[in-house]
Amino acid sequence: MIRVGIVGYGYWGPNLARAVSETEAFGLAMIADMSAAARERAGRRHPGVTLTADWRELIADPDVDAVIVATPVHTHFEIARAALKAGKHVLVEKPMTDSPVTSSILVEEAARRSLVLMVDHTFVYTGAVRTISNLIAQGELGEVYYYDSTRVNLGLFQRDVNVIWDLAVHDFAIMDHLLKADPIAVSASGACFVPNSPENMAHLSVFFDDGSMAHLNVNWLAPVKIRQTLIGGSRRMVIYDDMQTSEKVKIYDRGVLPSDPAAPSYEHLVSYRIGDMSAPAISSKEALLTEFEEFARCIQTGAAPLTDGQCGLRVVEMLSAATRSMTLRGHPIELTAERLAS
Amino acid sequence: MIRVGIVGYGYWGPNLARAVSETEAFGLAMIADMSAAARERAGRRHPGVTLTADWRELIADPDVDAVIVATPVHTHFEIARAALKAGKHVLVEKPMTDSPVTSSILVEEAARRSLVLMVDHTFVYTGAVRTISNLIAQGELGEVYYYDSTRVNLGLFQRDVNVIWDLAVHDFAIMDHLLKADPIAVSASGACFVPNSPENMAHLSVFFDDGSMAHLNVNWLAPVKIRQTLIGGSRRMVIYDDMQTSEKVKIYDRGVLPSDPAAPSYEHLVSYRIGDMSAPAISSKEALLTEFEEFARCIQTGAAPLTDGQCGLRVVEMLSAATRSMTLRGHPIELTAERLAS
Amino acid sequence: MIRVGIVGYGYWGPNLARAVSETEAFGLAMIADMSAAARERAGRRHPGVTLTADWRELIADPDVDAVIVATPVHTHFEIARAALKAGKHVLVEKPMTDSPVTSSILVEEAARRSLVLMVDHTFVYTGAVRTISNLIAQGELGEVYYYDSTRVNLGLFQRDVNVIWDLAVHDFAIMDHLLKADPIAVSASGACFVPNSPENMAHLSVFFDDGSMAHLNVNWLAPVKIRQTLIGGSRRMVIYDDMQTSEKVKIYDRGVLPSDPAAPSYEHLVSYRIGDMSAPAISSKEALLTEFEEFARCIQTGAAPLTDGQCGLRVVEMLSAATRSMTLRGHPIELTAERLAS
Amino acid sequence: MIRVGIVGYGYWGPNLARAVSETEAFGLAMIADMSAAARERAGRRHPGVTLTADWRELIADPDVDAVIVATPVHTHFEIARAALKAGKHVLVEKPMTDSPVTSSILVEEAARRSLVLMVDHTFVYTGAVRTISNLIAQGELGEVYYYDSTRVNLGLFQRDVNVIWDLAVHDFAIMDHLLKADPIAVSASGACFVPNSPENMAHLSVFFDDGSMAHLNVNWLAPVKIRQTLIGGSRRMVIYDDMQTSEKVKIYDRGVLPSDPAAPSYEHLVSYRIGDMSAPAISSKEALLTEFEEFARCIQTGAAPLTDGQCGLRVVEMLSAATRSMTLRGHPIELTAERLAS
Repeated sequence: MIRVGIVGYGYWGPNLARAVSETEAFGLAMIADMSAAARERAGRRHPGVTLTADWRELIADPDVDAVIVATPVHTHFEIARAALKAGKHVLVEKPMTDSPVTSSILVEEAARRSLVLMVDHTFVYTGAVRTISNLIAQGELGEVYYYDSTRVNLGLFQRDVNVIWDLAVHDFAIMDHLLKADPIAVSASGACFVPNSPENMAHLSVFFDDGSMAHLNVNWLAPVKIRQTLIGGSRRMVIYDDMQTSEKVKIYDRGVLPSDPAAPSYEHLVSYRIGDMSAPAISSKEALLTEFEEFARCIQTGAAPLTDGQCGLRVVEMLSAATRSMTLRGHPIELTAERLAS
Repeated sequence: MIRVGIVGYGYWGPNLARAVSETEAFGLAMIADMSAAARERAGRRHPGVTLTADWRELIADPDVDAVIVATPVHTHFEIARAALKAGKHVLVEKPMTDSPVTSSILVEEAARRSLVLMVDHTFVYTGAVRTISNLIAQGELGEVYYYDSTRVNLGLFQRDVNVIWDLAVHDFAIMDHLLKADPIAVSASGACFVPNSPENMAHLSVFFDDGSMAHLNVNWLAPVKIRQTLIGGSRRMVIYDDMQTSEKVKIYDRGVLPSDPAAPSYEHLVSYRIGDMSAPAISSKEALLTEFEEFARCIQTGAAPLTDGQCGLRVVEMLSAATRSMTLRGHPIELTAERLAS
Repeated sequence: MIRVGIVGYGYWGPNLARAVSETEAFGLAMIADMSAAARERAGRRHPGVTLTADWRELIADPDVDAVIVATPVHTHFEIARAALKAGKHVLVEKPMTDSPVTSSILVEEAARRSLVLMVDHTFVYTGAVRTISNLIAQGELGEVYYYDSTRVNLGLFQRDVNVIWDLAVHDFAIMDHLLKADPIAVSASGACFVPNSPENMAHLSVFFDDGSMAHLNVNWLAPVKIRQTLIGGSRRMVIYDDMQTSEKVKIYDRGVLPSDPAAPSYEHLVSYRIGDMSAPAISSKEALLTEFEEFARCIQTGAAPLTDGQCGLRVVEMLSAATRSMTLRGHPIELTAERLAS
Repeated sequence: MIRVGIVGYGYWGPNLARAVSETEAFGLAMIADMSAAARERAGRRHPGVTLTADWRELIADPDVDAVIVATPVHTHFEIARAALKAGKHVLVEKPMTDSPVTSSILVEEAARRSLVLMVDHTFVYTGAVRTISNLIAQGELGEVYYYDSTRVNLGLFQRDVNVIWDLAVHDFAIMDHLLKADPIAVSASGACFVPNSPENMAHLSVFFDDGSMAHLNVNWLAPVKIRQTLIGGSRRMVIYDDMQTSEKVKIYDRGVLPSDPAAPSYEHLVSYRIGDMSAPAISSKEALLTEFEEFARCIQTGAAPLTDGQCGLRVVEMLSAATRSMTLRGHPIELTAERLAS
């Protein structure tokens, strides 16, 4: 059994602790949180678990094999690096760190020590994204033209990160998993309507090396919650609506064909293909459990996780470049340049 | 009675002809179209109307008081200018022309001759936009933070304009009407997935002088038709969904308030206000008829129409700047510079 | 060419006249309406057509081959019978007549003279119902268990018929077409909330000889328009939502299987099958045109139309029995008894 | 503190136990379940609680002040009566018992001993029903014309009760709370499509003494989950859609007015009022907690609960009459007669 320690028992920590205790390969050994109230809550829910106020103690404990880091973003790097140096496998909350430089260091540290470094890109493990991933792998969508996502709601305003690091991170993680093309540049714009708060609204365009595009619309100040992604392909198009309780993924057999250029100017330039729609049954297994099984499997076999440190680094590079573009009103940031600069 | 001539009886022309004949102040006098088939169709529907293949003939006819120009965009300027020079009042299809320079010339020409120059920004005359306009004027939304619109569907691919000139034009017209702030810069990105076709997908961000923002998502290659606009204000927020048959405009009494900065870091930075939603009854009068009444009223009184030539020019400036930014991968275009350059 | 006369140019007549003129096999010869205003409207829209105030004149005219009866329900019988006696083929608006007795007489009259007698059950000719019909015929749904329809909206209150004769008639026509089992009894309840008006709300249950059931919920006093039908089968289930612009017909691969009777009492009695959903592309051809082609084909070939007089009679029997049950607060009416009684 | 014992730790029991432990006025003292596995689950979740296989032991325990009965329906009567006789306050799962006779006996027993007898009609305590209840009480809907509910989904098939006792019970409880008129008769029809299972589909009409009506559509074999209730009033109409995460209750300012009887026969009989729609913000407090606070308050004050035994009895009378009508294919059952017969 892999003995797991969790650092941070705030908003997401209780959920992680529960999922650890429900994962067969895991045993929940220890929880660290600076807050006495948080430790008390943890103790009531998980009577047998060791509690500590000091994450260094958790990391130093020989009874802990793997560490899950669920603290505020700016602390990820220090804790994760210390855990790796102490020889622990590490799963970090998303985003992995708050800069490409620190993410790179974690990736190197894990590689040097042959430890598993994984990022909690939960959406990649959902039934919906698994389904879309299979569709693309099997060529059902044809060539992927675009990924266009709207991820808006009222709140939760974050203290230490802007809306890109909070919401767009989900789409970057999904895109990193689904899309085979390489992103080459990003243009982003955003605004802040609440004083002394990070940007709460942003729009991002990502350009890929094969001519495809991605677009993200993220907003903490929308009247309703929307989680809708359109994926356009040459053969089929997908609508992934995470707010639906059923039919989250709809596949449309629709598209265009170039048509007769001699047609009158007010007529269509192309002809349309309007075929069936289908909504596949989707696994309702909790994504976090699938993810923890992946973490356990990789610890046991030495395999690289689906959302490994490299993946976490690529996502942080996107977040960093997008934030920089946002300060320049959409001025495009080349990702290679960004990578070298970091 | 104002005797109206229509130039162009293609896709939209029959609708204009019908609406002219249903407008009390108007008489449909003449229709011009190069295509014999189009003239035949027009003749069958409107037996008493004079038909001609040559728009110059229509413009020269002393029996025509006002001209509606419904030809391909690149011909608007020549026809509208000739009509104004012939002393006719002019209503031009959107977009007014294909460049700010030509739009400016039309505006000046109309002013010099004290003729009405109006642009067919139909959406401004819909019950939904009238309702939102009143809400904003009465301060119901408070300070307007953002306008965020998704206008996507499958087709109609245009031959001579890209998706910005075809779809974003609607939002620019609505924004020009609703928003009091001045746009200062635009950043746009786009792509084309159909060979030998103009860009079919674009995302635009518009920056305003008061810190507010607009964002437009337009696409000819989406699996379903979406016409959804979110408008965020300090007091209330609106969702305008034009695909709904009822409840097109929903007003949400929702927003945020800055909260205690001493709260734990995983808690909210702000507090939320979640009040009622309401969907006002909306006039179902056809927008085109309201618009034609406005055209007639302005011809009779010399008043400036709600969507006059100045408004058409501002929209064309936005379209032009957005298209330029799109070729530069989102590099922001300052609108004052753009205006001077034109 | 079949020369068609239309009796009644009120609410639905203009639509019929237009569709006749768009049907290749038809020529619109004559229109009869008592109202001078209606005749004037008809004359403006159809300049070459003969107009008369007296339907008897239309029926007597040797230039008319087929008559469409679009007058108030209580006049259908007299006009249709006279038309048949004059040797004309007849298409009657739904419901065919206001009683099974008169409907029977029409059926016999048409049979005796080898004339086509058809009822305007328009929904049977829609792309959606054609699609469902094919699914059932191909066994895709398995054994059909139930047909459950909600058809409610605000208005149109009718003067001479209750809500059953106005709205349930659509479902009876669809059911008559789709379901192979024979209805054996009907139980209906209803109420009237507007003084001096026929019943405006009713709920009907129909029992079939194979144990399947139908249920109809019809209401003129609902806040929104709902047109939703659930069809349950042993292999698949269908939702037909006529208010959707796309995806009108959704097919669910869902159902139940009896499970282990030894399971604890709070557990499921059956196990569930939750498979994919699919929404086939549906023909958008106007139903009325399909229907008129069927009318023309049957006149030319002597074939029995899909919605012939027998079908119209069966529907009227259902309407009549349901109305009787409604006056008895749901007391079930046996349909054989009803048939004998008539 | 009121010491609470729970009998039955199956499907719903764990939820009740959690809610008891979250209710300040309650202490969870004891749990009884015949199943060793259920007791083990209970023990793990609630370490300090006494467990027993024998509900008689729980009832006999002087440390228990109030008993919650969450066992299969046919056992409710025996357990609840024993608990009352032992001087305990009792909360019974819905439906209270499986017959009006036994329900009556419980009501009398509780009255004789001045004990609180309450039924777990949870929906009555939801924010949505509270909101509708206030609307009706304040006259916002005017005279209530009808209550029309669709409550269908796939499963859960029950072993010992038909779909009426499982699903219609919710609507009867809500109606009993919302509607002031007295039900006088019920007509129901239903069918069973799964061998050896109770009826899985039923449609019920309820007639009230003031001419208003209710209609329930319940089904365990529907492809999707629908929880939609239309409530029609003379002043306003409501749609209550429990599947919506927000906007569960929509209020429509719509209705009809009788109009000119001299209008042409194809025109409306009435005129329509189409006003605004509004969706009030609704409390998201868990209904079970509100309900338990009500239970505690009544135990402490001797007040009658909102959903007391009388209410439970009335609901069981409806369920019983509806089931009887169902066996008679909709033959209406008079409720007074039913009451006397029982």
